[in-house]
Amino acid sequence: MRLNLLNNFDASADWFKQLQLEICTTIEQIDGPMQEHTAPTRPGWEQSHRTIYGSVFEKGTVNYSKVTGEFDPKFAKEIPGTEKDSSYQATGISVVLHPSNPKVPAMHFNTRYLSTGIEWYGGGMDYTPCLPFDKESYHAELKQMCDEYDKSYYPDFSKACDEYFYLPHRKETRGIGGLFFEYCSPDTMSFDFVEAVGLKFNSLLHSTVMQNKDLDYTEEDKQIQLVKRGRYVEFNLMYDRGTKFGFKTGGNMDAILMSLPPMVKWN
Amino acid sequence: MRLNLLNNFDASADWFKQLQLEICTTIEQIDGPMQEHTAPTRPGWEQSHRTIYGSVFEKGTVNYSKVTGEFDPKFAKEIPGTEKDSSYQATGISVVLHPSNPKVPAMHFNTRYLSTGIEWYGGGMDYTPCLPFDKESYHAELKQMCDEYDKSYYPDFSKACDEYFYLPHRKETRGIGGLFFEYCSPDTMSFDFVEAVGLKFNSLLHSTVMQNKDLDYTEEDKQIQLVKRGRYVEFNLMYDRGTKFGFKTGGNMDAILMSLPPMVKWN
Repeated sequence: MRLNLLNNFDASADWFKQLQLEICTTIEQIDGPMQEHTAPTRPGWEQSHRTIYGSVFEKGTVNYSKVTGEFDPKFAKEIPGTEKDSSYQATGISVVLHPSNPKVPAMHFNTRYLSTGIEWYGGGMDYTPCLPFDKESYHAELKQMCDEYDKSYYPDFSKACDEYFYLPHRKETRGIGGLFFEYCSPDTMSFDFVEAVGLKFNSLLHSTVMQNKDLDYTEEDKQIQLVKRGRYVEFNLMYDRGTKFGFKTGGNMDAILMSLPPMVKWN
Repeated sequence: MRLNLLNNFDASADWFKQLQLEICTTIEQIDGPMQEHTAPTRPGWEQSHRTIYGSVFEKGTVNYSKVTGEFDPKFAKEIPGTEKDSSYQATGISVVLHPSNPKVPAMHFNTRYLSTGIEWYGGGMDYTPCLPFDKESYHAELKQMCDEYDKSYYPDFSKACDEYFYLPHRKETRGIGGLFFEYCSPDTMSFDFVEAVGLKFNSLLHSTVMQNKDLDYTEEDKQIQLVKRGRYVEFNLMYDRGTKFGFKTGGNMDAILMSLPPMVKWN
């Protein structure tokens, strides 16, 4: 249960920052120390980018940010609540993990709080395996977690995830889905749920990696992974709203594109 | 000098198809046989995709197409000459070469003819080295070729090339430029010039590759190349009009994305 001593912006930011540390701890326990990158940023902005190029995680990144600004007038038209005023507050955490072993899926998680003339939570998580993976158990865990808050969450958010992580030019989904939610007002969505998504990702990340990281794989499996990662790049550069949001708000380019896989192949 | 027995569409297509064969011959003399890919296409469409995964050319593709159709109404608004009628005829040749040796630049060439309510030629060529390269000699050859047709071509088209192959999110050009032209009416631009660009590319391709393909390079040079290729991917997926045109007109996805490099790295 969150305290209401702080406004939603500061309270969300504090929690996202704490979650960043917890997820980094999980990663470090599995694969050794992460690096902190500091980049030139703007006054009043707070950004922390942690990365790992390890043996289990070929590339992993855990980003936290707390920023304020004004949207470019043209871009503002795409954002709710900007009719009278194009200023915004945004804070979020974003995690992308590209494991070395092709039997471990690529994993993505993000939650965010945005405030314009209105305020909302958004986020979700999704897995992108390149080889057969136990989709059912993964979705069962997500459903169980969602059902504790609202029975409509799992059906709605898992459907939204499949729709969002879709490559129209390939007519295929990016991965096996998960959860995706956006424009959820603090009046109707408890921050407890946003927290639960983050904590569930942290525990799933640990169990998924530990169960699969030492499985044998072939050179052919690795090649399949490199090609599958190409679809990941196509999605992130062509469709991802987070990437677009970062570009439009002048965020740090290396941090925004940190989601891209390390080695990729197009056949 | 072209014969006017055929209309511009058929005559351009015939010549592009012949140029495809000539460029493929150059590539095959250097690096062995190319493969022809046939893909499901539409009635009245003619497309030929030739590729090489060789030792000199890590990945190379030479595409020819001759297609007709109707633009999607929304997309038509971006295309000149579609005010009364959204039908089009288009033919073109497109070449992308990603050499193995990082001392050989990635090379791109394209010329096309489009007809809507108006008709025009477009195209150009550009080099993307990842290590120091003799930019001056390359541009001098392009200037000499252009100057035989119109003294304004080289300054205009090389400037347009730098402007087109620019990554705003990186604030950098994709490569060292070359030529880029668009919306050039057959009333003012001779097809002889379009032919000259194609023939110049074929000769430059040969000399550039032969002069550099056996140069020694280090593992660090190779890593620089893989990272530089990431910028190539970013440009093609985020900004390239040809990629967008292919998507919007329902072209063959594998052929459209054949321009992407084989192995790529994001740090």
